[in-house]
Amino acid sequence: MVSEYRLRRRVLFYEADPAGIVHFSWFFRYMEEAEHALWREAGMSIAPRRSEFAFPRITAAFEYHSPLRFEEEFDIHIRVAAMTEKTMRYACEVTRDQTRIATGSLTIVCARKHGDEMKPESFPPEIAAQFQVAAGAGT
Amino acid sequence: MVSEYRLRRRVLFYEADPAGIVHFSWFFRYMEEAEHALWREAGMSIAPRRSEFAFPRITAAFEYHSPLRFEEEFDIHIRVAAMTEKTMRYACEVTRDQTRIATGSLTIVCARKHGDEMKPESFPPEIAAQFQVAAGAGT
Amino acid sequence: MVSEYRLRRRVLFYEADPAGIVHFSWFFRYMEEAEHALWREAGMSIAPRRSEFAFPRITAAFEYHSPLRFEEEFDIHIRVAAMTEKTMRYACEVTRDQTRIATGSLTIVCARKHGDEMKPESFPPEIAAQFQVAAGAGT
Amino acid sequence: MVSEYRLRRRVLFYEADPAGIVHFSWFFRYMEEAEHALWREAGMSIAPRRSEFAFPRITAAFEYHSPLRFEEEFDIHIRVAAMTEKTMRYACEVTRDQTRIATGSLTIVCARKHGDEMKPESFPPEIAAQFQVAAGAGT
Repeated sequence: MVSEYRLRRRVLFYEADPAGIVHFSWFFRYMEEAEHALWREAGMSIAPRRSEFAFPRITAAFEYHSPLRFEEEFDIHIRVAAMTEKTMRYACEVTRDQTRIATGSLTIVCARKHGDEMKPESFPPEIAAQFQVAAGAGT
Repeated sequence: MVSEYRLRRRVLFYEADPAGIVHFSWFFRYMEEAEHALWREAGMSIAPRRSEFAFPRITAAFEYHSPLRFEEEFDIHIRVAAMTEKTMRYACEVTRDQTRIATGSLTIVCARKHGDEMKPESFPPEIAAQFQVAAGAGT
Repeated sequence: MVSEYRLRRRVLFYEADPAGIVHFSWFFRYMEEAEHALWREAGMSIAPRRSEFAFPRITAAFEYHSPLRFEEEFDIHIRVAAMTEKTMRYACEVTRDQTRIATGSLTIVCARKHGDEMKPESFPPEIAAQFQVAAGAGT
Repeated sequence: MVSEYRLRRRVLFYEADPAGIVHFSWFFRYMEEAEHALWREAGMSIAPRRSEFAFPRITAAFEYHSPLRFEEEFDIHIRVAAMTEKTMRYACEVTRDQTRIATGSLTIVCARKHGDEMKPESFPPEIAAQFQVAAGAGT
């Protein structure tokens, strides 16, 4: 069972904006990258080809504390903060060495695909069994 | 004085993900597009060349209610929800006809550039004078 | 029958990079936006839901002549430069007023979807009938 | 002296489009990522803070041979294909195991910044000295 993942990443040129700092929208992508790495750590892909399940995002938020610039190395630390029958909430912290860059959260819902529509449904047991709320998270 | 702006937009192909719906990170860009259009409506650019001010984002959040797909037309409605001496908070609603797609918020801070560093500072009067909290917003 | 389309567009903040100019990768997206507008002008979507056809890109190229900056308005002019049974080639010019910003080309192939694989195939007559090589293009 | 670099990368979710494959515009960003890694391999950043030089792109092209999908691992192999006093041309090959995904090229020019304008200029000797045309490239 997994409950957290830490991903090291470098800022790419196209992620920084004319102010010279990473555009705020990228942090949501960074958080998702770490989430997908967490699922791989649990032995799964979050979106295998021809899967009947999908995990749309229902809330996403970030607070920004310090800027991040081109080519800087940073860490994305994602933890499972809460789980219900149909939803999972992550907490995320982005840091560069000892500097806190941004803190965020993401809530996803388990959904079954019906053609190109999706309906919320309980996590299948084989998926739910892989995740555990991180110690000290969600408090 | 301006307090809100409504921008009509069409979903572009590269904004939709393998699930066939707009990737959640794009809503933050949509919200910013509407913000910049609001500033132009107020007769200003938010980032004129060689400006000594910048307006970094300090919080950003979205809740997602319904999916949005390639080529659909939608509206981004942004309103000034709160203003302080150094910050401005926007509320944002994304809709497709009568369907509520997503609701979000964004807080920016006024900062003065010192080389490539930035320090928070009061909004210059000529900028502050252009904005007004929208009626019914922020409640 | 259509053979060209001109799309007016404004540079968005997140499209410009730390050098203050539109990142070169965006021009490929601009060209595609104009292509999709051309298809709508012809009364079609290039990617309707549940369609059995897709139009993957097989070549794409740009030459860059002059920079483009945040909030500048510009035009994307796309023309059908050549058509074969299975492929279509576009020529594209990006301008800001009288200034030539970039010139590009794009070749697409008609493909039929088989599950999540795709195989090249002749354009269906109802699609081929909508397009015509632009006068003076492709020379 | 460096003349080539091979970067291993995994496809991220937001890089794939509704057709389930990497959007063609991303290959230009992949090529640039490999270029910047090549410069780091040569002991330099292509865009250090407060640098008086910049390296705008003057041509970019890709041919697409095979699709690439979410979470697949792939290699970006970039080589210096040609150098002149003011320009450098790279050749690039994207592969997934033995499968050729895409082949591209990129030409950059050395420019000196004058405020926010840029003028072409010879590569400074300390930069030119780090690069060498790859054996067998550019033929």
